[in-house]
Amino acid sequence: MTVEGKLRAAIVGSTGYGGVELIRLLQSHPKVEITSVISSSSAGDAIEEGFPHLTGIIDRKLDGVDPAQMADRADVVFTATPSGVSAKLVPQLLEAGLKVVDLSGDFRLKDGAEYEHWYKHPAPADEYLEQAVYGLCEVFGERAAGVDFISNPGCYPTATLLGLIPAIQAGWIKHDSIIIDAKSGVTGAGRGTSLMVHYAEINENFKAYKINKHQHIPEIEQTLTEIAGEKVTVTFTTHLVPMNRGIMSTMYAGMTGNHTEQDFVDLYREYYAGRPYVRVRDVGVIPATKEVSGSNYCDIGFATDARTGRVTIVSVIDNVVKGAAGQAIQNLNLMMGWEETLGLGYTPVYP
Amino acid sequence: MTVEGKLRAAIVGSTGYGGVELIRLLQSHPKVEITSVISSSSAGDAIEEGFPHLTGIIDRKLDGVDPAQMADRADVVFTATPSGVSAKLVPQLLEAGLKVVDLSGDFRLKDGAEYEHWYKHPAPADEYLEQAVYGLCEVFGERAAGVDFISNPGCYPTATLLGLIPAIQAGWIKHDSIIIDAKSGVTGAGRGTSLMVHYAEINENFKAYKINKHQHIPEIEQTLTEIAGEKVTVTFTTHLVPMNRGIMSTMYAGMTGNHTEQDFVDLYREYYAGRPYVRVRDVGVIPATKEVSGSNYCDIGFATDARTGRVTIVSVIDNVVKGAAGQAIQNLNLMMGWEETLGLGYTPVYP
Amino acid sequence: MTVEGKLRAAIVGSTGYGGVELIRLLQSHPKVEITSVISSSSAGDAIEEGFPHLTGIIDRKLDGVDPAQMADRADVVFTATPSGVSAKLVPQLLEAGLKVVDLSGDFRLKDGAEYEHWYKHPAPADEYLEQAVYGLCEVFGERAAGVDFISNPGCYPTATLLGLIPAIQAGWIKHDSIIIDAKSGVTGAGRGTSLMVHYAEINENFKAYKINKHQHIPEIEQTLTEIAGEKVTVTFTTHLVPMNRGIMSTMYAGMTGNHTEQDFVDLYREYYAGRPYVRVRDVGVIPATKEVSGSNYCDIGFATDARTGRVTIVSVIDNVVKGAAGQAIQNLNLMMGWEETLGLGYTPVYP
Amino acid sequence: MTVEGKLRAAIVGSTGYGGVELIRLLQSHPKVEITSVISSSSAGDAIEEGFPHLTGIIDRKLDGVDPAQMADRADVVFTATPSGVSAKLVPQLLEAGLKVVDLSGDFRLKDGAEYEHWYKHPAPADEYLEQAVYGLCEVFGERAAGVDFISNPGCYPTATLLGLIPAIQAGWIKHDSIIIDAKSGVTGAGRGTSLMVHYAEINENFKAYKINKHQHIPEIEQTLTEIAGEKVTVTFTTHLVPMNRGIMSTMYAGMTGNHTEQDFVDLYREYYAGRPYVRVRDVGVIPATKEVSGSNYCDIGFATDARTGRVTIVSVIDNVVKGAAGQAIQNLNLMMGWEETLGLGYTPVYP
Repeated sequence: MTVEGKLRAAIVGSTGYGGVELIRLLQSHPKVEITSVISSSSAGDAIEEGFPHLTGIIDRKLDGVDPAQMADRADVVFTATPSGVSAKLVPQLLEAGLKVVDLSGDFRLKDGAEYEHWYKHPAPADEYLEQAVYGLCEVFGERAAGVDFISNPGCYPTATLLGLIPAIQAGWIKHDSIIIDAKSGVTGAGRGTSLMVHYAEINENFKAYKINKHQHIPEIEQTLTEIAGEKVTVTFTTHLVPMNRGIMSTMYAGMTGNHTEQDFVDLYREYYAGRPYVRVRDVGVIPATKEVSGSNYCDIGFATDARTGRVTIVSVIDNVVKGAAGQAIQNLNLMMGWEETLGLGYTPVYP
Repeated sequence: MTVEGKLRAAIVGSTGYGGVELIRLLQSHPKVEITSVISSSSAGDAIEEGFPHLTGIIDRKLDGVDPAQMADRADVVFTATPSGVSAKLVPQLLEAGLKVVDLSGDFRLKDGAEYEHWYKHPAPADEYLEQAVYGLCEVFGERAAGVDFISNPGCYPTATLLGLIPAIQAGWIKHDSIIIDAKSGVTGAGRGTSLMVHYAEINENFKAYKINKHQHIPEIEQTLTEIAGEKVTVTFTTHLVPMNRGIMSTMYAGMTGNHTEQDFVDLYREYYAGRPYVRVRDVGVIPATKEVSGSNYCDIGFATDARTGRVTIVSVIDNVVKGAAGQAIQNLNLMMGWEETLGLGYTPVYP
Repeated sequence: MTVEGKLRAAIVGSTGYGGVELIRLLQSHPKVEITSVISSSSAGDAIEEGFPHLTGIIDRKLDGVDPAQMADRADVVFTATPSGVSAKLVPQLLEAGLKVVDLSGDFRLKDGAEYEHWYKHPAPADEYLEQAVYGLCEVFGERAAGVDFISNPGCYPTATLLGLIPAIQAGWIKHDSIIIDAKSGVTGAGRGTSLMVHYAEINENFKAYKINKHQHIPEIEQTLTEIAGEKVTVTFTTHLVPMNRGIMSTMYAGMTGNHTEQDFVDLYREYYAGRPYVRVRDVGVIPATKEVSGSNYCDIGFATDARTGRVTIVSVIDNVVKGAAGQAIQNLNLMMGWEETLGLGYTPVYP
Repeated sequence: MTVEGKLRAAIVGSTGYGGVELIRLLQSHPKVEITSVISSSSAGDAIEEGFPHLTGIIDRKLDGVDPAQMADRADVVFTATPSGVSAKLVPQLLEAGLKVVDLSGDFRLKDGAEYEHWYKHPAPADEYLEQAVYGLCEVFGERAAGVDFISNPGCYPTATLLGLIPAIQAGWIKHDSIIIDAKSGVTGAGRGTSLMVHYAEINENFKAYKINKHQHIPEIEQTLTEIAGEKVTVTFTTHLVPMNRGIMSTMYAGMTGNHTEQDFVDLYREYYAGRPYVRVRDVGVIPATKEVSGSNYCDIGFATDARTGRVTIVSVIDNVVKGAAGQAIQNLNLMMGWEETLGLGYTPVYP
């Protein structure tokens, strides 16, 4: 089943930013070999036509989307496809006996009706929604061991949930007080062309979008609700930052007690003990997005305010790595029972 | 008292971003003539040495800081100085009979102890704190008429207060629920050199700073408290955006009733009726910072959320114009009884 | 023929960057009134739908492209259209008795065959190519007086020609030695969407394009040839800079004698005497693009090198102003016999 | 001499961009262990205070500059110091028996007088200038084998020389016709603070600097002269691009014959055969800086022009990697007789 003892991987959506980042990261994975790069729109082209930075690194033509061919060539498929596409494709891959890590969002919500409300597409069949393990590695990592199908978390939910869950589990913040002000670099919008991502419209500009309407809201609430043991509803705003990579989630919540910044640091360090990709910063240190750029880290900092009784939690990730391709590989490692860090040992690129 | 029938203006701090923007804007003011550009650090230099874009536009050497000379050459002085400097300089200018619009922040807080707590400098004498009219034009414009001394609002407070005041005055938002997530371009940090503003540290980066510690917090609370009629305390976070100009204040508050976005639009349009520099956007339209760049506008949009009972208010300004030099000129116009728009008829520069 | 004594202007292509900049600049023109904003693609929409920064400034629906209607509503038409469109439209406008300033490039080359070689479209009829006055204001300004039809120069040619012509006319540089290394901000690519202008592809990137193939080459050569009195052929490279506005043309040429930087400064200052929008910088001062941003200036600096016998000439403009809308208005002023600076008194926006 | 069989490395200048990039890259080098990170200005601090992105990656306090201590702790020292500092420090390190890769520029010129002319510092003693091997790996790689002291090439010279040498050696371009128009991201200016690198002065700006005066000129000419066998003098302009990383060198030269683009591609591919870090692009493909970002590649493309008889050669590198830290590691690999690619297997980070 392997090439030279390696797991064979196919990447669907290899011409998007998530797909091309999977290629970058998997180049250094000691136990995985990319055997097929797949694109419905550019099948037959050399991948370096669309991504000249890969010249001489991966000499391979793009394959079309053909489940039988994938089953023949690969052991695991990463589906970095637009939402709606995976809903149809993934069941075929699973039926063909392939392992799947889906980056699309189509299998993150357990409730199909909720999916249809926020995504405006027909939901996948319930059996697949049930089968899909939500791969937030530092929280649900144990669930990933040995399974065949992981639904990789969204970029905003990853930064947000890692920043909120320890405090919610500890009962330190009021469930009805959570406000999430999130900011993302432009790669989060994908590689499709539109006026919204035209350089001259983004540069020297800062804008909010999809206030209270982003499809990542139910994903965040589903997991917070599970942790809290009661329905949690959040206020969630997304903004577009004139930069390529990076998400910051600035989160506000009322505290249930007089917790200090040191309390939060201690709580989170205990929660994330043994988890190499969450770095809880020292008291008084707030992480910036560039400090995790190009890497799989999620860095978290705190500011408590006795005047208002609120805590401000800041969580940053590289949306293309920890928010997509990096966590997908981390999930593969967990599925396979490998060390969590394989292929992910990238120091942040600074500056 | 005037040159060719014009009011003579001196600008202290002409080598900072606020000062140089005053020069740009005053070039087109029909009733003002710049008669002295002043810099303590670069006195004697031609202004175009530090600001080559002014070559051939204002052929003038920088003067030193000399109140007697200012009284001789000017009728009004704009003090665009670092905080702490104006505290000492402005009383001398007022004693010399000059009109003053102070952009420094030294005279915004009515309570000297509060000033010393947040600014870490000795406060000006109480008589000057009392004399200073807080020049938030669209709210307190009437107070400016005929006075000699205006304290120009801070950049963050301008965007924030214009976005909150109508709702607070109407009793539509809960006073203890206000959270302000603010973002600013780098000009807000001034022209001083430091690693914090090094291009390579800012570019492709997004960072939070001074969480709950920014000196604009008491300025915001002082005014909200006055409007609300009771003490208002806010949670306030500032972030640095990799761009030159622009502030967005994203504000969250619990609503006291079931107000819709249309309700908010109507309320704010009524409040700001006749005020040319606040543009309340249509329902569903959220302004972006570039849409006011280079101009004196403050644009406001709303998103209400029945799920959480909160309203999200987004307010944007150009921090160098409406947040500094533009509002200072608007204040001068109000002081002099001129039309509010003189010298400020700039269409936003887009893109 | 005028509204309140003003010339009535229509703008075709009002949803492009050139068109919207014409709107910005004409707002402050004392003798021009915009009476129609025209877009083939968005006719019927309010202009603020596509350009929210114009909210409350120009309340007007976009008209369709209808020459008869233009003749009814306007005295002059600015055609800021893609190349190929003006070729067909402008003759109809001229026949209808309208004045035209064409920003498209379709009428810049006098030789139709040359046009078809570089532009890959059928050329306009020869009579119109002959009629069109090439509006490089500081060189051919006299030709504009009283005419009805101006072909507005391209952005790269404007920066380049203003930087080369005085030296060529003086016989100071070798005609066969000219190399032009030009760089432009992204607005130069227009507002159309494509992967080439996707933010994430441009940001943190610097690329060359169309080396020796840019359609502005024959425009530059045609004018240099006229000035030189013999055929001039140039090497011309264009690069895309991750910024919105600005062109720098860095030009290299072998000198015919031992000219110093002071010689060049003196020569150019004499050539451009009385021309307010060319600023020849002092010896040793090289202009940067931001120093003309938002304004109609072209700034020029020199570095001579005794080691190689070459001069390096640096010329900068704002491509949307002096390279498009600003020079178009300057041309209108010259056509009408008005002062050259009307509506163009913008100080550069810095920073 | 090694820790766990690894070569022990010290990095002087660990708080600059070159030093911190050495840390990033050496993390993945299988045969090198960083045993000391050294900073004269920040000795005693944890490195993560100045570079929070290294939190948890390298837990080490900065050492002071002490040659005896270095000799005790390390086998090789990378000196990423300002010019003038290495001139004094490196001889002490060599005397102490350490291997040295110097990134400062102090030992690149063989002629001390030339050094003093361009660098304005006293030159190192001639014996060290002679001893230093100029480490342009793809050209002089054989000279590095077994030596103790490498002078690492400058960033501009690396991009430029790799782009010119094969053509000069083949006699295809005229020696007196070479013009180099170079552009660099801001990290090239170092991490020191000054108005020149203030974000608001760089962003939305493009500027030329040090025209014909850059200290990399004699370095380029020294090597071209060696290859050409006669004195070569170049015209060289540097520009600052609003981005962090990347250099493009756009080079112009008159051709000695009718060479085509295919000829150049073939020539260069033959010259660089077996050299993994130069990628000669296909005919018609011009590389952009982002396509090598974060990696050790130098990518080269060509445009020949029959109209002018000139060739335009475009060469791009990441200035911090191939132009500094990456090539320094490549040189270490060559010194030690290791495989050239150790620790350098980074796929470019895109986008």
